[in-house]
Amino acid sequence: MLKRSLFAIGLLAANAVWAQPKKDYPVQAVNFTAVQFTDNFWLPRMKINHTVTIPASFARCESTGRVKNFEMAAAHSGKFCTTYPFDDTDIYKTIEGASFSLSLFPDKKLEAYIDSLIDKVAKAQEPDGYLYTARTIDPTSPHAWAGNERWVKERELSHELYNAGHLYEAAYAHYYATGKKNLLNIALKNADLVCSVFGPDKRHVAPGHEIVEMGLVKLYRITGKPEYLQTAKFFIEERGHYDKYDAKSKDPWKNGAYWQDEVPVVDQREAVGHAVRAGYLYSAVADVAALTGDEKLLQAIDSIWENVVTKKIYVQGGLGAIPSGERFGDNYELPNATAYNETCAAIAGVYWNYRMFLLHGESKYMDVLEKMLYNGLISGVGLDGKSFFYTNAMQIRNNASHRSMEPARSGWFECSCCPTNLTRLIPSIPGYVYALKGDAVYVNLFVSGNASIPVHGKPVNIVQQNNYPWDGALSFTVSPQKSDAFSLLVRIPGWAGNQAIPSDLYSFTDNQNCKVTISVNGQPVDYILDKGYAVIKRTWKKGDVLKVNMPMNVRRVAANEKVKDDQGKVALQRGPLIYCAEWADNDGKAANILLPADAAFQASFKPDLLNGVEILQSDLPVITVDEKAQTVSTTRKTVTAIPYYAWANRGKGEMMVWFPVKVRDIDIYPTAP
Amino acid sequence: MLKRSLFAIGLLAANAVWAQPKKDYPVQAVNFTAVQFTDNFWLPRMKINHTVTIPASFARCESTGRVKNFEMAAAHSGKFCTTYPFDDTDIYKTIEGASFSLSLFPDKKLEAYIDSLIDKVAKAQEPDGYLYTARTIDPTSPHAWAGNERWVKERELSHELYNAGHLYEAAYAHYYATGKKNLLNIALKNADLVCSVFGPDKRHVAPGHEIVEMGLVKLYRITGKPEYLQTAKFFIEERGHYDKYDAKSKDPWKNGAYWQDEVPVVDQREAVGHAVRAGYLYSAVADVAALTGDEKLLQAIDSIWENVVTKKIYVQGGLGAIPSGERFGDNYELPNATAYNETCAAIAGVYWNYRMFLLHGESKYMDVLEKMLYNGLISGVGLDGKSFFYTNAMQIRNNASHRSMEPARSGWFECSCCPTNLTRLIPSIPGYVYALKGDAVYVNLFVSGNASIPVHGKPVNIVQQNNYPWDGALSFTVSPQKSDAFSLLVRIPGWAGNQAIPSDLYSFTDNQNCKVTISVNGQPVDYILDKGYAVIKRTWKKGDVLKVNMPMNVRRVAANEKVKDDQGKVALQRGPLIYCAEWADNDGKAANILLPADAAFQASFKPDLLNGVEILQSDLPVITVDEKAQTVSTTRKTVTAIPYYAWANRGKGEMMVWFPVKVRDIDIYPTAP
Repeated sequence: MLKRSLFAIGLLAANAVWAQPKKDYPVQAVNFTAVQFTDNFWLPRMKINHTVTIPASFARCESTGRVKNFEMAAAHSGKFCTTYPFDDTDIYKTIEGASFSLSLFPDKKLEAYIDSLIDKVAKAQEPDGYLYTARTIDPTSPHAWAGNERWVKERELSHELYNAGHLYEAAYAHYYATGKKNLLNIALKNADLVCSVFGPDKRHVAPGHEIVEMGLVKLYRITGKPEYLQTAKFFIEERGHYDKYDAKSKDPWKNGAYWQDEVPVVDQREAVGHAVRAGYLYSAVADVAALTGDEKLLQAIDSIWENVVTKKIYVQGGLGAIPSGERFGDNYELPNATAYNETCAAIAGVYWNYRMFLLHGESKYMDVLEKMLYNGLISGVGLDGKSFFYTNAMQIRNNASHRSMEPARSGWFECSCCPTNLTRLIPSIPGYVYALKGDAVYVNLFVSGNASIPVHGKPVNIVQQNNYPWDGALSFTVSPQKSDAFSLLVRIPGWAGNQAIPSDLYSFTDNQNCKVTISVNGQPVDYILDKGYAVIKRTWKKGDVLKVNMPMNVRRVAANEKVKDDQGKVALQRGPLIYCAEWADNDGKAANILLPADAAFQASFKPDLLNGVEILQSDLPVITVDEKAQTVSTTRKTVTAIPYYAWANRGKGEMMVWFPVKVRDIDIYPTAP
Repeated sequence: MLKRSLFAIGLLAANAVWAQPKKDYPVQAVNFTAVQFTDNFWLPRMKINHTVTIPASFARCESTGRVKNFEMAAAHSGKFCTTYPFDDTDIYKTIEGASFSLSLFPDKKLEAYIDSLIDKVAKAQEPDGYLYTARTIDPTSPHAWAGNERWVKERELSHELYNAGHLYEAAYAHYYATGKKNLLNIALKNADLVCSVFGPDKRHVAPGHEIVEMGLVKLYRITGKPEYLQTAKFFIEERGHYDKYDAKSKDPWKNGAYWQDEVPVVDQREAVGHAVRAGYLYSAVADVAALTGDEKLLQAIDSIWENVVTKKIYVQGGLGAIPSGERFGDNYELPNATAYNETCAAIAGVYWNYRMFLLHGESKYMDVLEKMLYNGLISGVGLDGKSFFYTNAMQIRNNASHRSMEPARSGWFECSCCPTNLTRLIPSIPGYVYALKGDAVYVNLFVSGNASIPVHGKPVNIVQQNNYPWDGALSFTVSPQKSDAFSLLVRIPGWAGNQAIPSDLYSFTDNQNCKVTISVNGQPVDYILDKGYAVIKRTWKKGDVLKVNMPMNVRRVAANEKVKDDQGKVALQRGPLIYCAEWADNDGKAANILLPADAAFQASFKPDLLNGVEILQSDLPVITVDEKAQTVSTTRKTVTAIPYYAWANRGKGEMMVWFPVKVRDIDIYPTAP
């Protein structure tokens, strides 16, 4: 996402310049290093990521044997000592996160530790560039998933190219954050091997768990080496040609859909299969479409995005409804009790939606990104920075008859992709705030802080002051070095108007007609909306103050009635946040709350609750069972809702996102004998 | 079940006498022809079976093409025109039912029609005795399940021996009811072929759907031909030796359990697989154990019975919990929402339990038989005699989120085994009332009527006068031709004491201590209980009146707590009847009723309701939703329960057998949007 233009004006530490791609995204990202947060929402999260999550993650890499695997690979002796051959990537991902984090919080000790790890990675790399501890430790007795030869199990199991992809991603971040090439050189050596092995006249495979494609594109951005882009495109084009699948089967493992491998990518129109793999593939498809101008890939990825936002996304931004295969369900198949919503899938969703925005410059992609970021993504990490969800539940019931997904967070997982993925996503968020197209500056996220954006070749300082996501009153102080005419394109989120999501999958049902107002230096300005952005075009002078007011009312959200589990129910949204009711605020229950059509909510900020949250309260009918367990009655109680992302930080108990408006019927669960 | 002794004294119409088996059941059945019902419960059911069910069944055999299949087989031309190769058996079974029924209601027209059908069956039989229209119509293009050669698909699909078994059963009944040999001769010719094809040194197979074993035993009883018994035993011993199954698989089709074929019968200890097949096998095992004295078979069948009554029977006598495979579940796996309970499985259960009684002379087997007969078996046929259940549900919910089994009866089914099985079971019930062991006369069922029982070679007339199952006051007028000393063994049902079923699977929890009182000619008599029977040993003289009073209180039944679905719930029983609450009596709902520990019920007979039933009523807490669907509350209402067997005769709606005592939790179902 880094642009040469930024690079050239010295905002980055890296010191090498390669050729800029001839074709690229029409919109240019503004790199994370150009933006400094000063806010109370994200900055504390990035700090705790730096002080708790990243150290804990490295500690787990050490204690579980992930680091030892590299040491044994260097020595060519021992026995692979963790569970999965892709356990290597937890180190790469934490290095990536630590690299981002280093640019926020310089930390010599951490930098030195990373270097020591990179040294171990380097020693585990085979002379020709191959890097995969699950085989290198003992090639005569590799991990069962690795296959007896290189690459032979890549399609289904080995994750050799998945490891490679995360290596490239880490190398890219490490290089730009530190200017060092020690990890980059390892990555390039590995990438050269991959490009020499795979290709139209060489070995063919559709990588089993996509990400090498994204990674190769990043190496292409650094080096300009066409083979990297070509090989990324080759891997994308390899999908859908494997003739051993059973096209008639409905089993996604048998028909290839699990791997997005059932039809060629250019013919894909629906999001299918493993949601994380899918998200990484779709990100790479956007990259390659942008960098090659391939219209068919563009058509495919536009259609798949449309499919997701109209039929396959949970109201809190979660992707991948189905536990079996961690995958997308059918259209409108979004059950609450068994919602899977892997944290990594939301992270992949952020990557993908940002790329869709860069392709099209439309706010709807950032609306989806914001929905994920503030809800179903950060719900994956506890406020303590060291407890995680692999899946993100949509409801938790006390009742044992209900199957629930993870009701409580864990410190780590055997397959621990999500915690390490969070370490790299959280410190990268500054990179999603601004973007550029010519002399138009996109303001996509609202986070107090400072940024230096190059317009007409000169930095424009923008200071955001707000209390987002709690307050919709936004202030931007715009300071070019000297007065200059350019546009600010401020995203007007769907939620600030009347759109819960850019489709009819979810809609506001409360008939509120919200209006955003904008002023410059105290004078109201009329603005036009273009692709979802308020265009403020003027000659800006130092210290101009742009104010944008987005009413943050409590909104009732209803799902498309084709979503069976949400029929007759509403969810609550305020600003970008989806709310939930949790047991801890509601006398131990949350599944007994009705939300009648006339319910009115009071919002109030509680600084001591859950690190500070705006809560919603209303007197609502609540169904209770008497002490003798002989009668059921409806009483009115003050019900408290908290932001969804903050649930499960106070122990285990009920949590609901969707609330029935009216009761059709009830089920009685008897007391145990 | 027919005994030579009865036969010899002229109680039967048949005119041939063959040798009596050397070994047999210790207890002798008293044949159905020796007992005439005059009661208001069973006699109307047998009448409607004669006037409605049997004619409707024959009409369906004609209209669906089942008769045409025989005509085409006779002509060796055409195309098998129904769905299953075992459709032939619907004709055999209805002939069997009609034969029993003819002995109750002489009917020349029906007898002639049966003869015309038998004539068609005879013409469809191949010269060597083979009889299977699905092949004979066109041997070059047999039904897909039939296999390209005789018997090759018998293990899994063809049902050739199943058809044979039902032919033998029908021939036995027809022969004893009418004295005619036209169907018997067809059966014997077929059985001779079967015995010539299968055996230790001949072709091997474990018959796919058992019944040929029971049928062969019946032909052995008529003819005394040892091959028939030997072949029945051979088929039983064939099970458990097929080496193509995967013993490690948990799939009952892959490990053979579906066919009771996973281990040899002598090693079987648990009821598994398809419940009807199992019931027919277990009946045959009892027959062969009795007729051969095989101790290992006896051990196996005793253990399997123990397994069923302690872990695998529903409270209304239903067998076979699992829809997939129509089979027994695991121990204590008795879910209510998806209970399968095929009507045929209850019928097979009656056959089996009667044989267990004949083996052991203990009342517990008749207790189970009575439970099935009065509850989960006759629930299979509507009061109109022409609407049927294939499965017998344990609960029906209005709520669409609940999967329900058949909520309403059908006229017939594509696989229509149950309706035709009912035609043969209903008119045979008189055969289960009495039995003999030396000069001890067992009185097993309580049905007003007359019987003539041979004691010391002379008929003893017994007249039952009662209002069973509504009233526990029973009167028996015992009239030997001249005074004679013998015992009457009157079954004291478990329910009349403190046993809901002969195991801890279900138990009464109401702490009532019921006591049965007995008098002869107005004088109370002390009696001893032997194997569950009150032994009244005296010199009986003509017109002696024995009165037995069994208190019919309303009892609360609880299931063993290992039955997950019944935890914290109770069922209601009065006399042999299990009750249910149905929508029609309870304002359209039944799933909202609580049954607190202190609930008291009033029983009252309603002559105009459901052909006359004793209903149970109580003021109970009932959970209701208000008209605006905004509140849930508990009110007290008069709840009416009806006998389970009588449900689903007034349209489609909720029905519950198990009621929560206390509420632990509830589920709210919202109204549709």
